[in-house]
Amino acid sequence: MTTSTSPCKLAVVGAGALGSYYGARLARSGEDVHFLMRGDLVAVRERGITVSYPGEKFHLTPARLHAAATPEEIGACDIVLVTLKTTANNSFRQLITPLLRENTAIITLQNGLGSDEQLAALFGTERILGALCFICVNRLAPGVIDCTSTGTISFGEYQRPATARLRAIAEKFTRAGIKATVHDNLAELRWRKLIWNVPFNGLSIAAGGITTDKIMADPALEAESRALMQEIAAAATAHGFTIPDTFIQKQLDITRPMGAYRPSSLLDYLARREVEVESIWGEPLRQARSKNVPTPRLALLHALLRALTELPGNSRNNVN
Amino acid sequence: MTTSTSPCKLAVVGAGALGSYYGARLARSGEDVHFLMRGDLVAVRERGITVSYPGEKFHLTPARLHAAATPEEIGACDIVLVTLKTTANNSFRQLITPLLRENTAIITLQNGLGSDEQLAALFGTERILGALCFICVNRLAPGVIDCTSTGTISFGEYQRPATARLRAIAEKFTRAGIKATVHDNLAELRWRKLIWNVPFNGLSIAAGGITTDKIMADPALEAESRALMQEIAAAATAHGFTIPDTFIQKQLDITRPMGAYRPSSLLDYLARREVEVESIWGEPLRQARSKNVPTPRLALLHALLRALTELPGNSRNNVN
Repeated sequence: MTTSTSPCKLAVVGAGALGSYYGARLARSGEDVHFLMRGDLVAVRERGITVSYPGEKFHLTPARLHAAATPEEIGACDIVLVTLKTTANNSFRQLITPLLRENTAIITLQNGLGSDEQLAALFGTERILGALCFICVNRLAPGVIDCTSTGTISFGEYQRPATARLRAIAEKFTRAGIKATVHDNLAELRWRKLIWNVPFNGLSIAAGGITTDKIMADPALEAESRALMQEIAAAATAHGFTIPDTFIQKQLDITRPMGAYRPSSLLDYLARREVEVESIWGEPLRQARSKNVPTPRLALLHALLRALTELPGNSRNNVN
Repeated sequence: MTTSTSPCKLAVVGAGALGSYYGARLARSGEDVHFLMRGDLVAVRERGITVSYPGEKFHLTPARLHAAATPEEIGACDIVLVTLKTTANNSFRQLITPLLRENTAIITLQNGLGSDEQLAALFGTERILGALCFICVNRLAPGVIDCTSTGTISFGEYQRPATARLRAIAEKFTRAGIKATVHDNLAELRWRKLIWNVPFNGLSIAAGGITTDKIMADPALEAESRALMQEIAAAATAHGFTIPDTFIQKQLDITRPMGAYRPSSLLDYLARREVEVESIWGEPLRQARSKNVPTPRLALLHALLRALTELPGNSRNNVN
C-alpha cells in the first residue's frame, strides 16, 4: 500500500454514474485511475468524461484517462473501487481477480447488504473495505456525469475498526475535494442506510412510481415508511448494532425537505434497468429471519418488488 | 312481502354485469324486474339484454324489460337488489329512497365490508339482507352479459339468522335456475369471502397486474397470500366469527386449479375503473384495528392499493 500522498493505481469496476464521478475526481486530483466500463467505453475513449457538480464543471480528455474493456488491460492495482450494480455481483471473480496483487484493497460502494460478505468470501476478509455514498449523481449521457448533491462518502473496514490504510484512502478522497468520513463499524452504517432505503426506494416503486414527497404527503404511506423502518431497526438491533431511538424520526425529518425526490431504485425501475432487490430488501429479510425478528412488511414489500421487477407476465414487463 | 311463488317487483340498482345477469334471469323466470342503469341505458332500450352462460343463451327484448334512468321512474318495489360498485355507495340515499315502501327488502350483493352497515344506517336494519356472489361474469358490451361460471349466491339476513322472507327470496333465485343457499350469519360469510379477496384481488394488482396462477407459482407471493389470510382470519375471530382451521389451506387449494384467473379488482384496475379499495381492504383494516389485531401486511397492501388507484402522480395515473 502506498502512502496517502503518493499517487496510487486505482481501478473503478463498473464505471456508471457513481464510479465515473469518484474516479474522475480522483484522477483530476492526481491518482492513476483506470475505468473498467462496457457500454460507454467507445464514447468515453472518444470524448472523455465530463463531470459537473454544484459550482464546478471539468473535463477529463481521453488523453488524460484510462478506459478499459477488460480487467486484464488494467492489471494489478493498489485499490479496486467496486461500483457495479449488485445485480452484477456474480461477475466479481472474473472482473476483480486480474486487478489484485498482494495487499490490494477492495472497496465496495454498493447498496444494501451482502456485497462485503461476497467479496470477502472470494478474495479474503483482509482486503475488504466498504463505503456508503450519500450523494445524488446521474449519468446524462455516456461519459457525461451530473452530481446535484456531492454529499459525503463514509468509509469503514470490513469487520474491523478503522485502520491507517482506511484513513489514507479517505484522505485521497478528501484531497480530491470530496467530503469523506471514517467509521469503526461498517455493517452498522449499512443497516442505518437501509433504514432509509428500504421504505423510500421500495414504496416509491410499489406505490406506482411516485416521488418521496408523495409518500410523505400520504398519511398511510408515511405510517408504512415508519413501520418498515422499525422492522429494519429491530433486525439491526438483533444483529448487535446500535440504532438510536431518535434515528427513525430523523430519517423522516430529512426526507420531507427533499421534495419530489426519486430514489435510485425508482430511477432504475422507471428506466427498465435491473433493480437491486436482493441487496436492499432480500438480504435484510434473510438476516431478520435468521434472528427470528418479525418483518411482515419487509417480507410483503420484497415479494412485491421481486414480482414487479422480475416476474414475466406482469404489466411492466408486458410493455416493450 | 309477496310469497315466493307470486311475481314480485324488483329493482336492480346499478345494473352492470352482475346486476344485469341476475336481473335478466329473474325477469325471464317471471319476476317484474326493473333495471336502473346509466351508461348502458340507451343501448339496452334499443337492443335489450343478452345473457349467455354455460350451455344457454337468451335474449330479453326491449319490450320484455324495464330499463330506467332514475329510481322515480321505477317507484316502490318489493325487493331492491343493490349491485352498485361500493365506490358509489355515497349515492345510496338518492338511488334507493324512491324504491321503498313498507317492508321493501334491500339486498346488497356488493363486495367486502361496510355496505350492509351503511344501508342499515340509512334505511333501518330490518330492511337489510345481503348476498355473496361466487360467480364469474363479464359485460362484453352494453347489454351483452357473459357468465363463464354461474357459481352460487349465498344469502343472509343482516344481524339476524335466516328468516322466511330470506328463504322466499332465495327460492325465487332457485326457480330462475340460479344455485342459491341461505345462511344464518351474513357477516361471517363476508369475512370468509374476504380471506380470498384480500390477498388475491390485492396482490394481483400490487404485484404488477398478474393473474392468480402467477401468485401461486411464486413461493414468496404464495407465502404472503397465506400470511394475509391469517391476518384476516385473526381479525374475523376477534370479532367473534368462526374460521375453521382448515379454511385457509382450502382457499389456496381452490385457487391453484383456477389457472390464469383475473380477480374482479384486477379487471377494474386494468380497465382503469374505480377499484373497491375501501370495502375490500380499508374496512377490514379498520375493523382489525378496532380490536387491536395486528395486520401489518393488510396495512401495507391497503396503503399501496390506495396509492396505485387514487394518488395523482403515480405511473398508472400518468398514463392517459
